[in-house]
Amino acid sequence: MPRHFDEELEHLKEKLLKMGSLVEVMVERAVASLVDRDSRLAEEVIVSDNKVDGLEVEVNEDCIRLLALQQPAAKDLRFITTAMKISSDLERMADQAVNISQRAIELNEEPQLKPYIDIPIMTQLAQKMLRDALDAFVRRDVQLARDVIPADNKVDALKNQVFRELLTFMMEDPRTIPRATRLILVSRHLERIADHATNIAEMVVFLVEGKDIRHIPRE
Amino acid sequence: MPRHFDEELEHLKEKLLKMGSLVEVMVERAVASLVDRDSRLAEEVIVSDNKVDGLEVEVNEDCIRLLALQQPAAKDLRFITTAMKISSDLERMADQAVNISQRAIELNEEPQLKPYIDIPIMTQLAQKMLRDALDAFVRRDVQLARDVIPADNKVDALKNQVFRELLTFMMEDPRTIPRATRLILVSRHLERIADHATNIAEMVVFLVEGKDIRHIPRE
Repeated sequence: MPRHFDEELEHLKEKLLKMGSLVEVMVERAVASLVDRDSRLAEEVIVSDNKVDGLEVEVNEDCIRLLALQQPAAKDLRFITTAMKISSDLERMADQAVNISQRAIELNEEPQLKPYIDIPIMTQLAQKMLRDALDAFVRRDVQLARDVIPADNKVDALKNQVFRELLTFMMEDPRTIPRATRLILVSRHLERIADHATNIAEMVVFLVEGKDIRHIPRE
Repeated sequence: MPRHFDEELEHLKEKLLKMGSLVEVMVERAVASLVDRDSRLAEEVIVSDNKVDGLEVEVNEDCIRLLALQQPAAKDLRFITTAMKISSDLERMADQAVNISQRAIELNEEPQLKPYIDIPIMTQLAQKMLRDALDAFVRRDVQLARDVIPADNKVDALKNQVFRELLTFMMEDPRTIPRATRLILVSRHLERIADHATNIAEMVVFLVEGKDIRHIPRE
């Protein structure tokens, strides 16, 4: 029996949140596999990407079905199109977690280059951005969504700091080059996770206010 | 006076193709700014990103309007939702062209590390992938779309080759490290451009066949 439209939308929202939680866990574990030098955990992250991929396909199908069967009004229409986009950002975040895990497996085969300090901080920032963006989505909280966006600058600054620090390592001792290069890539993957969280936050503003703020220059 | 629905869809398609051409030119010029050591060209690429951003916002608004005003049938519905997604992939490709231009500006400040061979080849492959994916979209040509997808493996292989080669440069002479690292990043940006072209090709298959092939493992 077909569900009521509001129920369908609620169900769609729940699926997105489920995707969001999976992605959060993947990011957490990908970085833990690096910090704790646990390649088995990294393998688990890589395998779990399937689940997120499957949910993305489902969300896409659900959205198209809802658009086809119902004739949603402006607000619901924005919700459905936003849901499609959020799911694709979440799927790409999961891919970044897979990339981090692959780098972790490579890095774990050699002695640890240095204690990881900035990378866990970047991870915490990116995770908080994701969590807040999804909370903002659930609660249609524009202020919370807007607060996510400037955090992206902090992640960028940390990425640059990681880059400069690792360059000095490489210059001092060429044997560190393969490891340092992989750590630079890890920081880029984290930066992209933060970018996707920013996208989600911007889409929440669009969802609630109908205003596309993605390409407005920030202060 | 409101246009006929088919005209609207045609207009939407033209906007996407315009975005596609802009992105093609941006990628071309970004790499040319590196190969020809022309930082002014790189600046032009960075500035032109605005146009692509503007078109993405327009396409998004057009799609939502079409979904709201009309009650599109299954095929048109897939066309509109696919258009939204293609425009977001194109916008992200443009961002990658900007990233390449930024690396080019940095690299052009120092002597050229080596003749660029693999990077232009990667660029040609990625550009052909984009061109074919957009052609497949226009002609609803599933076979052409499917042919785009395996090319992504070639780009990945070149990316790995660039990485290994530049590692040896860095190991032999630490003074090359900042330049080599930036070139590694350029190759990653090109790889992501190819990934986005793959996404577009996969969406064309979805558009025509209604089948989501994105997460089916390739041979």
